[in-house]
Amino acid sequence: MLPTFTDVRRGPGAERTGGRPVSPARGPRRPLGLAEIALTDGFWATLQQTNAAATLAHCEAWMERLGWIASFDRVADGTIGPDRPGWSFADSEVYKLLEALAWEHGRTGSVEVDEGFTRLAERVARAQDADGYLNTCFGHGSQQPRYSDLEMGHELYNTGHLLQAAVARVRTVGVDAFVEVARRAADHVCREFGPEGREAICGHPEIEVGLTELGRALDEPRYLAQAELFVERRGRGLLGSVAFGPAYFQDDVPVREATVWRGHAVRALYLAAAAVDIAVDRDDAGLLAVLERQWARTVERRTYLTGGMGSHHQDEGFGDDWVLPPDRAYCETCAGIASNMVSWRLFLATGDVRYADLMERTFYNVIATSPRADGKAFFYANPLHQRTPAEGSVVDEVNPRAEGGQRAPWFDVSCCPTNLARTLATWQSYAAVVEADGLTLLQYASGEVRVELEDGGVIGLDVSTAYPDSGTVTVRVTDAPERPVRLRLRVPEWAHGALLAEGGAERAVEPGLVDVARLLAVGEEIRLTVPMGPRLTWPDERIDAVRGCVAVEAGPRVLCLESVDLPDGVDLEDVRLDVSAAPAAVPGGAPGAVVRAQVVTHTDSAGALPYTGRQSPAPVREAVELRLTPYHSWAERGPSTMRVWLPAS
Amino acid sequence: MLPTFTDVRRGPGAERTGGRPVSPARGPRRPLGLAEIALTDGFWATLQQTNAAATLAHCEAWMERLGWIASFDRVADGTIGPDRPGWSFADSEVYKLLEALAWEHGRTGSVEVDEGFTRLAERVARAQDADGYLNTCFGHGSQQPRYSDLEMGHELYNTGHLLQAAVARVRTVGVDAFVEVARRAADHVCREFGPEGREAICGHPEIEVGLTELGRALDEPRYLAQAELFVERRGRGLLGSVAFGPAYFQDDVPVREATVWRGHAVRALYLAAAAVDIAVDRDDAGLLAVLERQWARTVERRTYLTGGMGSHHQDEGFGDDWVLPPDRAYCETCAGIASNMVSWRLFLATGDVRYADLMERTFYNVIATSPRADGKAFFYANPLHQRTPAEGSVVDEVNPRAEGGQRAPWFDVSCCPTNLARTLATWQSYAAVVEADGLTLLQYASGEVRVELEDGGVIGLDVSTAYPDSGTVTVRVTDAPERPVRLRLRVPEWAHGALLAEGGAERAVEPGLVDVARLLAVGEEIRLTVPMGPRLTWPDERIDAVRGCVAVEAGPRVLCLESVDLPDGVDLEDVRLDVSAAPAAVPGGAPGAVVRAQVVTHTDSAGALPYTGRQSPAPVREAVELRLTPYHSWAERGPSTMRVWLPAS
Repeated sequence: MLPTFTDVRRGPGAERTGGRPVSPARGPRRPLGLAEIALTDGFWATLQQTNAAATLAHCEAWMERLGWIASFDRVADGTIGPDRPGWSFADSEVYKLLEALAWEHGRTGSVEVDEGFTRLAERVARAQDADGYLNTCFGHGSQQPRYSDLEMGHELYNTGHLLQAAVARVRTVGVDAFVEVARRAADHVCREFGPEGREAICGHPEIEVGLTELGRALDEPRYLAQAELFVERRGRGLLGSVAFGPAYFQDDVPVREATVWRGHAVRALYLAAAAVDIAVDRDDAGLLAVLERQWARTVERRTYLTGGMGSHHQDEGFGDDWVLPPDRAYCETCAGIASNMVSWRLFLATGDVRYADLMERTFYNVIATSPRADGKAFFYANPLHQRTPAEGSVVDEVNPRAEGGQRAPWFDVSCCPTNLARTLATWQSYAAVVEADGLTLLQYASGEVRVELEDGGVIGLDVSTAYPDSGTVTVRVTDAPERPVRLRLRVPEWAHGALLAEGGAERAVEPGLVDVARLLAVGEEIRLTVPMGPRLTWPDERIDAVRGCVAVEAGPRVLCLESVDLPDGVDLEDVRLDVSAAPAAVPGGAPGAVVRAQVVTHTDSAGALPYTGRQSPAPVREAVELRLTPYHSWAERGPSTMRVWLPAS
Repeated sequence: MLPTFTDVRRGPGAERTGGRPVSPARGPRRPLGLAEIALTDGFWATLQQTNAAATLAHCEAWMERLGWIASFDRVADGTIGPDRPGWSFADSEVYKLLEALAWEHGRTGSVEVDEGFTRLAERVARAQDADGYLNTCFGHGSQQPRYSDLEMGHELYNTGHLLQAAVARVRTVGVDAFVEVARRAADHVCREFGPEGREAICGHPEIEVGLTELGRALDEPRYLAQAELFVERRGRGLLGSVAFGPAYFQDDVPVREATVWRGHAVRALYLAAAAVDIAVDRDDAGLLAVLERQWARTVERRTYLTGGMGSHHQDEGFGDDWVLPPDRAYCETCAGIASNMVSWRLFLATGDVRYADLMERTFYNVIATSPRADGKAFFYANPLHQRTPAEGSVVDEVNPRAEGGQRAPWFDVSCCPTNLARTLATWQSYAAVVEADGLTLLQYASGEVRVELEDGGVIGLDVSTAYPDSGTVTVRVTDAPERPVRLRLRVPEWAHGALLAEGGAERAVEPGLVDVARLLAVGEEIRLTVPMGPRLTWPDERIDAVRGCVAVEAGPRVLCLESVDLPDGVDLEDVRLDVSAAPAAVPGGAPGAVVRAQVVTHTDSAGALPYTGRQSPAPVREAVELRLTPYHSWAERGPSTMRVWLPAS
């Protein structure tokens, strides 16, 4: 059954379709609303249910425990000061949780979730100053003055997340008191930083995407204009200097002149997402083309096999072209989410399937990798090679960044858990788009879709699949207009040899979007079959860090070799993949692959440097068959080492 | 001519030999004093002269400009406050400059340098509190209280450098007012942190090595005991938590239980240096063995071809075993200096030539790489691969870390210039050691040596060589006792095929120490010839980041390919070294090598990820001959890209 909203109050601005995070003002494609698609079971439904059942409460409990929520109470009662706990961006975690709760309520209609949202929102609302300013870290009592540290103070960043939470609220239940709080905050920003206000920007982009979307949701053109001002001001040296230089926060080059993403990955990607919004709503083809080129260049040279972005720990940033070390990969979970925010907007703007392809890769191999199966611990960084096993087991304490091969319950900088929460709560909104003449399925999961077309008529689909454990996706038509429509399915970029069965015949289809453009019959089935068998993947020779290595993928999943799957006495660093043998599916159909490998013998250099005048390959000790497993589920079986890229024998 | 001290006041404690930075209380080897050896010309004499003529004044000018020296005046006149400029360790830069000036004066007897030292020392002295505490960042006016941030406040670290400056002073001119300042500071530390004081340590080791050496210089056993307390307290969790965890400052594992160096490289190495001092002076063979094992394990798995240590930018630290990315190599100049501090102490303690071998490598390829030819700009980090050319030219401003392929005049964290200054001023003290029965030459440079043996008699040597441009080292005996002595020469670990001519015959000698043990005749010549031709060097297969790559070395120098030496239109990333051809010497004898290479053609993936299902080597476009140059002199010819490790064709 689709969720209904009969038990939900519906105010002005609420969307009959249930709403979605991104809703461009122009263009031929609109994402499905949460009332138009419901997951029934499978990979993402499980993650979404765990998010609802565990992660939301987990995030709230941690933020209560650390006093991050109480900071709002302390602003309201006048007791806040410089001792406010957490980083300056702690407010944003509360807002991201509010956004997640709002979507979760919108998706399920849960009264309990709605009450949870309201309780939290009321505490936030009480902290708002009379002029709309809302921040617990600056401007109260003996705190630093408002906007006195635009470089690192995150004030506008926090506000941006407040606005995104309000977007979720207005689209699911309409304008309520919380949305009015956000509107006052946005109005304050427009007054303070508008054409007549100070010519400044925030060190961490986010206000831009928040303003744009709230402007769309409330039909308020001033917010788009303000976002545009922020985006166009960037890259002109308005921010003061920081140790990592102006590229760290993209203040080095104007957005329209940049050729590639650089600096702090999440910052770069949030900014790009807002720039796409502006390009679309302003119908600015020039800006859109620039952003498409930035995406392409970044994907070609600065993106990991997992879709992960960011190869520096130091500044959580992009490296130079080809700097993609698997062991020191940062691949922040939030950067994966942000990458999908950009790709989604570019897909909506262009319809180019490569954006949806990258999103699938990032969903399965970055976003799904972060949460532990129980939804109560997370990876912040997502390296592709873990050299030392985690020490001890996860303890109930704040972890700096969970870089030790073990998911952690909470972080000092805890952006990822709440970012995951809001993303998982809305996963299905990225699964399909509606166009004038039909519907395109982009991501596969069992579920029900029911969409009213613009010029009348309903398309209803019942999707049934065990994707990505199986490559068969069966789409049963449950409703259809009495005229031809175009149903499109994405054949993933890696799916060479896919088959489409429809209208009584099966045909080979190539990667890309495949059309079924005709009258649909209620009850008929359309079946896409994509090959899920494991395959070898080789890196471009310019990626120095994985020269001579090979990875194995299966369907949308990147696989890895984890030490817990090694025979006793075999060290992960001694394994060489035998590339003369094709990797095979796991007997019984479990995810992963079986590969042939050689175990070599290494000897240490007895106190000498590990460099010699001879090129002598390590001798082979034995040949073994090894099991590879999905990267996203590594580190769920106790301390281990792991690698995605294996040296080829 | 050897420098004399006739024009220098000589007080109690001054050493007739001119003094040296490290003077173990026990053991069969003692380093040459600065009055026992003088460089005449060549590679290190040039660096030393540039240091004297340019770097010392450069450092002083920058520290005046930034107010770091004035902070001492402000403490004295009571105007210092939380606005004190620079990091908490800025005081140590002044002390390291004082140390460099003291050695420089000791080496040359320059009155001008002595006056410069005294002017600066007097300003420092005025800032000392009545109880001996001396620090410009804590404890005065509205500053944070003394010792309120042992984790990151660097108070004892600063004091350690004060003590090392005093060591230079006492050994060159004797106990003067400045040495008394240091003695009061050391006494204060012993009272505050002694057995009856607080059980604490400093986040950055350095006080230990300063106390040990000042104790040796002043014959004050309490200082060694205090250093020992600090070393033994470490690794027991006495420091509070920091983001990078307790391994960052080696508070994770007690020194005696650690198996490898880890965390912040300079911290790890300063601590190890002090631990060797303690092991030696206490005759603690167990501790010494532990430290030798730590050295060996670190060299085997965590050290770059250049001798550089530290592969993380984030924490300036060691990575896991085999994490040695050339592009993100940190290889901080100070870590190279610190590595030599440890190796030198281990050589003195054991006589094992491998320590001197690593020192040579580090001298030529880390320490010599940092300063620009004019001595007024420096590398902080010393990566082995620069992917993007420096932007613009060096400007007259403070640089964060000089990571952009260009040496910088000064840094925000400016530990390296003054550390270089004190190291270059004493280079010759690491060139040879005296033993009961003779002398061992360890590092080669033209110069004069004159040493009184313990049981009488003098050895005088006139060393003549163009090392490392030439492999011939001629040692002329200018004085000799009338009994057999043992003259030893180090044949470097890479010098296969070396020849020793002495006593009228030439013989092949193997890497290691080669003995000439007999009666020496005044006027006779002993000639060592080591092969300086270029050679290929291959990495251990476990260093993932350079798999399939090869480097070229020539003598003690690591070579590199710099883009300024490429033909027009050839990109550094497209070069493959043809390993079927041996690298050749440069015609005319200039440093470096000529190699055969292939230029391949890469094509970008047009908006797709750089990973494919096919292993297709890039097609060869052309074969070229290329010139490689010494790594230590890269980035002296305008903006360039550079790599040490070249993919092998």
